[in-house]
Amino acid sequence: MNAPDPFTTLLDLERGSLDPERGVSETRLSEIMGMYLEEADGVEDTVVYRVYQIPVPTTGSNLLSSTTVIEPGVVGREYHMTKGHFHAVRDRAEIYVCLSGEGRLVMATEDGRHAVEPMSRGTVNYVPGGWAHRSVNVGDEQLVFFAVYPGDAGYDYGTIEKEGFPVLVVADESGPEVIPNPRYKTASRDEAR
Amino acid sequence: MNAPDPFTTLLDLERGSLDPERGVSETRLSEIMGMYLEEADGVEDTVVYRVYQIPVPTTGSNLLSSTTVIEPGVVGREYHMTKGHFHAVRDRAEIYVCLSGEGRLVMATEDGRHAVEPMSRGTVNYVPGGWAHRSVNVGDEQLVFFAVYPGDAGYDYGTIEKEGFPVLVVADESGPEVIPNPRYKTASRDEAR
Repeated sequence: MNAPDPFTTLLDLERGSLDPERGVSETRLSEIMGMYLEEADGVEDTVVYRVYQIPVPTTGSNLLSSTTVIEPGVVGREYHMTKGHFHAVRDRAEIYVCLSGEGRLVMATEDGRHAVEPMSRGTVNYVPGGWAHRSVNVGDEQLVFFAVYPGDAGYDYGTIEKEGFPVLVVADESGPEVIPNPRYKTASRDEAR
Repeated sequence: MNAPDPFTTLLDLERGSLDPERGVSETRLSEIMGMYLEEADGVEDTVVYRVYQIPVPTTGSNLLSSTTVIEPGVVGREYHMTKGHFHAVRDRAEIYVCLSGEGRLVMATEDGRHAVEPMSRGTVNYVPGGWAHRSVNVGDEQLVFFAVYPGDAGYDYGTIEKEGFPVLVVADESGPEVIPNPRYKTASRDEAR
């Protein structure tokens, strides 16, 4: 059995920070720009989001967990968001507990179904197996959530990079609005021609 | 794939209550009395703890989650606690996020190793695969935590009912103290004679 000994991490239930802080990854605007419809007029090295992980062996008997912090902001009309991914092992679920901010969790299946769930302090979102997931910060403050998922789930970013999500969350005068993604699966359709 | 559609539950990040409230189980003193060294002088139908679950199919691709609320109290010198169990599928891990109160998470392997980790607001306890786990309320208020574990983990209560944990958490004049359990594995030793 590939398991660590029991251990405890301290999670700030408002800001999401972890103590001890073990693994941190930053995603900058330059790494995610291609996912927005419009070109960023912001500074390309702006950090869009950070993920703080509690590392364990990446096997099916372990559970990975992490805090994600998405900075507020827009690129064109689209809000700051995570890249979004399917799990490499498709049927693995994930649970999000939102700690602060206001967001939307955009999910999609490979056959084109989609769902958009609310995120705010205390929401527990269930991401079922088979659903790609992207979180979007629609507020003026940081969006902070704690996630738990199976250690063997893995990450498939490529499918979303190529196909996109069926819908986008954009800033409308009256607030966040969900609109169809005009580029959804266009790249793969072009390839198929 | 046996997965629900995406859904969202609201978790009170202080009190642990869930909205909507779907599955609740109550464990009364009468059901857990045999696990204490001394006899309870309390009222047998006192609720020791409640578990509020977010139900999903019990398969390995899903994740179960629940809030546990342990009422404060003692039986003899032992604090109120959960029954404690191994996962039926032994290697499945579990993650606890404590929301309020003060507790100890007692864990043990089948070969007799044990660990006692602290629980207080914001602690994230990692229960690795292979470790039985019991939470103990050592404070004067409710101990509240949110747990996530694989849908196929299952519950083996019988091994703990028979063997106990290697250690007990008891109230000492200076606060909670961890002592060896004089009855640990005595029942199974008696059977082996």
